This record gives sequence, C-alpha cells and structure tokens, in this order.
Amino acid sequence: MDPVRIAIDAEGGDQGVPVVVRGVLEARRLWGDAFEALLCGDRAPIMQQLELAGCTDTGVWLHVEHCPERIVDSATPSQVWRRHPGSSVVRCVSLQREGAVDASVSAGDTGVLMSTAVFLLGKSPGVHRPALAATVPTVGGGLAMLLDVGANTNCRSEHLVSFASLGSEYSRSLFSSEEPRVALLNVGEEHFKGTPVIADAHETLKQECRGYVGFIEGSRVLSGDADVIVCDGFVGNAMLKVCESFYALTERVLSSDPRLLETVTRRMAILNADNYGAVPFLGVRGIVLKAHGRSSAQAITSAVGTTISAVRRGAIPRDGVGSHRRREHSYAR
Amino acid sequence: MDPVRIAIDAEGGDQGVPVVVRGVLEARRLWGDAFEALLCGDRAPIMQQLELAGCTDTGVWLHVEHCPERIVDSATPSQVWRRHPGSSVVRCVSLQREGAVDASVSAGDTGVLMSTAVFLLGKSPGVHRPALAATVPTVGGGLAMLLDVGANTNCRSEHLVSFASLGSEYSRSLFSSEEPRVALLNVGEEHFKGTPVIADAHETLKQECRGYVGFIEGSRVLSGDADVIVCDGFVGNAMLKVCESFYALTERVLSSDPRLLETVTRRMAILNADNYGAVPFLGVRGIVLKAHGRSSAQAITSAVGTTISAVRRGAIPRDGVGSHRRREHSYAR
Repeated sequence: MDPVRIAIDAEGGDQGVPVVVRGVLEARRLWGDAFEALLCGDRAPIMQQLELAGCTDTGVWLHVEHCPERIVDSATPSQVWRRHPGSSVVRCVSLQREGAVDASVSAGDTGVLMSTAVFLLGKSPGVHRPALAATVPTVGGGLAMLLDVGANTNCRSEHLVSFASLGSEYSRSLFSSEEPRVALLNVGEEHFKGTPVIADAHETLKQECRGYVGFIEGSRVLSGDADVIVCDGFVGNAMLKVCESFYALTERVLSSDPRLLETVTRRMAILNADNYGAVPFLGVRGIVLKAHGRSSAQAITSAVGTTISAVRRGAIPRDGVGSHRRREHSYAR
Repeated sequence: MDPVRIAIDAEGGDQGVPVVVRGVLEARRLWGDAFEALLCGDRAPIMQQLELAGCTDTGVWLHVEHCPERIVDSATPSQVWRRHPGSSVVRCVSLQREGAVDASVSAGDTGVLMSTAVFLLGKSPGVHRPALAATVPTVGGGLAMLLDVGANTNCRSEHLVSFASLGSEYSRSLFSSEEPRVALLNVGEEHFKGTPVIADAHETLKQECRGYVGFIEGSRVLSGDADVIVCDGFVGNAMLKVCESFYALTERVLSSDPRLLETVTRRMAILNADNYGAVPFLGVRGIVLKAHGRSSAQAITSAVGTTISAVRRGAIPRDGVGSHRRREHSYAR
C-alpha cells in the first residue's frame, strides 16, 4: 500500500517547530512506512531540529518545503490564502490542491485554515459552511461525533441543519452505521427551550433528517444516546475543551496517589486531547485536519495517526463529505 | 441562631414529589435545626410520601403549602407568575416576597423561576438580566465561578459585561477575595477570536472591569487561572452539564474495578452534580436557587445545604447581589 502523503504545517502550533518535528519523528517510529511527511515552514529551524534529533531521512520519507513568508497578524482569516501564498499553512493546502499530498494538517488558526481550504479546495456540493467534527467517547464504550467544534462561532439555523447532514454522512462512513441518531444540543429537552435559531433548526430537522432524535443536553453528550451531536462552533469548542480541563482536574484529584493516577490516566487515555490530535473539516473537498493550537509533540503524533486513518478508511472522500444524500447527482461536477 | 426558612418547590423536578420529600428528610437528618422547610405542592402526594417515610414532623420544622394549580405547558415563562399564582413555583417566591421564608429553591423550569423571581422580588439596581452562577472546582484545589449557566440563552455584550460585575461581587462576598480575576470565555485567546458580541464585551471589560484578565478557553475553565468566568447561558449550561457527563464516563471507565471506582468517586465527589445541588440567581432581590431539573434526592439534600449556607453567609444580600460598586448609592431605594 502506498504511504499516505501528508503536508504538515510546521509553524502552526503555539509551541512552534520543535514540537512538530518531535511529533512527526515519533509518528515515524510508530507507523513506519504508512506515511510520508512534507513539513512546510522556515527551512533553517526545521533542519536544525532534525539535526538535533539525529534524523538523516530528509528526501526519503521526510521532505521540507521552505515557506519564507509569515502571516501578518492583522490579515483577516479569509484574506490569508491570497495575501500570504508562501506561508506554511497556505503551502500545505496548495500542495494538496496540486496533488502532491493526500491530506493536510495544521495546528494554526482555525479560521485561516478553513478559509484557505474552502478557497483552494472548494466546498462539497450543497454545503453551507464546513464544520470541524470531533469524535468523543461515550459512557457505553462507543464513540459519538460532536460538530461544529470551532469553525463557525455564529450559526444560523440552516448551518446547524447542514452540520446534521455532514455529521450523519461522516458517521455512516466512519462507523458503517445505517442510520446515525442525530441530536441537537440545547439547554433542555422540552420543545420551548433554547434560542430561536435552535427552535428553527429543530423544526427543519424534524422534517428533513431521518435519524433525528430531538434535543440533547450537555449532560448526555457523552452518554451514547446520540451518534451525532450538532451545535454551533462556539459551544462545541467550549464543551470539547472543558473535557480537557476535566482531564487535568482528574489528574490533580489523584495526584497524591501515583499508582492510582497511573491506572486512571491509562484507562482514560481516550479522553486526553493529546490522543485525538486533530479533527477533520467536513464539507471541504479534501482531507484537511485541524490540530489543537496548544498541541504537544504527542498530539502531533496522534494527529498524524488520525490523518493516516482518515485517508485509509476513505471516510472523507477526495471530493468531500457533505453532499446531501438527496443531492447525490450534484457530485457530478 | 434562628433556622433558615426555605420554600421548596415539591413539584419542580422531573422526578416529582417523592424525590423532593426524600431529599428534604435527608437534609433534616444532616443539618437538623439549621432549617425549616415549607414544601409547596399538591398536599395529598406530599402527605403520602411523608407518611411512607414515617415522618410526623408536619407543623414542627416541616410545613406543607397546598398548591392546587398546575402550570399549563403553553404558558410562556414570563406569564406564569401572573397566570398561575397558585402553582408551586410561584407560591414559593410569593411566600418569600411576603417574608414567610428566607429563600426559595426549585428544580422547575429556569425561565419560569427567573421570570417569577424578577417580577415578584425585583432585580437588583443596575442589573440588566439576572444570571445563574455555578461554583466549579479548580485544578489547584480552589473554586471558580461560572456564569451564566442557563438563565440567558441569547446575550448581548452588555449582558456579558453585567455578568462580570455580578460574578465579581458575588465572588468577593463568597471567597472574601479583594479583586477576583474575571475572564471572558472565548474559542481562543487572540484578540481577533470570537463573535462580535464577544469582541464588544471584551473591549468594555478592558475599560470597566478592574479584575479583567481577558479571554479564557474552555480548556482553562477549571484551571484556576480565573476566579470568575463569564459566558452566555447556553454555553455555560452546556459546559456545566458536560462535566456531569464526564463524571458518568469516569465511573464507566473504572467500573471493572470496584475498589478503584469507590476511591475515585469519593475523591472526585465535588464534581458530582448531586453534590452541588442548586445554583443561585444573581441580580435578583432575594435568595432564589435553581436545582437541576433531573435532581435526585441527594441533589435536593445538597440544594438545601447550599441554600442554608447562602443565607447564613449573607453572600447574597436580601436586596440582591449585583449593584455595580460604582453605583452603590442606588442601593438606597
């Protein structure tokens, strides 16, 4: 099987090049020939880190794409792809557009990555706005999908409806489930709860989404009562990140008992942000994953693993998840 | 010291009268003479539950206020206090207005309880909208305040600014801290992140809130980096409730090892929704607490405990938390 070719933004994360390089080298140790990495960023610091690590594989499975340009902070996300074509994040997605890689991963700004992906790769047919979908563990031992987790902080009801469709399709591909149960996050489960946007989305979903099971509260997000949980990106981001905070708190509570701590953190490993690494954009024509801004080396390693399996499983088709089933004809571009 | 007189909505919770009665009787066992309960609801089922429990204290520390009226589901929250004056929740707050009790607790609908409290007791001077404030544990072993957690699902920036002021004042009373660090929840910490509402609130808080420390992400909500975390009620509700879900997940992960499970749940007891019981409305002229709709008997017991200490500590003054310090003169009505 050909290795999965991944463009990796070496400069996207808060912790810079050293962490990305360490993460990629560890991924090589774990998954060997399963992938090739194309590191995009300033060549000098990347080469320095590779030398420090004693890595001489440049040109073999590891390639460096020199990106001299920096993103000026004042550039709005939607302008970056045009104004800074030589920046590391834009080069990743450009290389993907050119067919040089199969997927891109960046720990950089979500808005910049989404705009760049939308402008350079395009949206899937019928998609209003792409969304970031996180996979979360459930109490019963399964997995559920939560979206959006940060790509869209201000949503109208049609965006939420679109996320339901994106999540449902992705869940079908990922878990081979026939009819994923889709729920809409709300502050309560009675029909009169929530905002007008939520109420509107609820009415449309009742009509149009076959697997729709109604409202769900935060307390049931990890319960396994739904396979796909739809919310706006502000709320989804907050919920996903508070889980990280909770993980840290668990560690603190158990810190006086090292043996217990070790047992619990090992068993709860699936909840640690470092282990999921990156989440995919759904509704983009191509496989683009967003890693956490604060990614550790371990998170980058996991992000590479997640990308390999996203490409291998074909859960995100090359022309994107997200076309409504009823609009399958529109796949024919 | 006189017992704290608490009006308790016997019918507010999803699990009805039996759970509320059991919770109140357990509270009596724990805190004895510290409180008197005035149970508001349909007399017959309340008396039946008391009989079943072998309780003969009616008229001693436990009183029953017969409330024959039911809230019709179609009534909008803001109309309930006028349309259903004989309902259990409205009677609780009416009795408080009449001075018959010191505080009210209900596990009923948040919107109904808030509107009833605002109309019957009034808002504190200078308050736009009252907010529900939850106290959450922090990694360092302390506590932080999160508001709003469900009273306002659609906020403008001035509401968020007002929550900062409410939370700050409450935090000062509760923890005797000089200058609580106030943070605004956002999807990132860079200045360009978030919605226009968040950006506006950020600018105002920088000018007007002395303890303001800027944006905070969900991953730092439990970190202890802020004493007061401000967000809209939709997000706050989702975050608080996902913590419950997380607690259940922790239990699941450890279920195969009963000894370990027992140790962990004991040590993490503070994270269990059953243990905090109820959260106060800030910005209302009086002590009104909202218990979880799904409250268990244990949660009701905790809610009684929380109410006793809220009244005893005087953290919520009788005329309400929430007047801006700079507007102290307006306390003189």
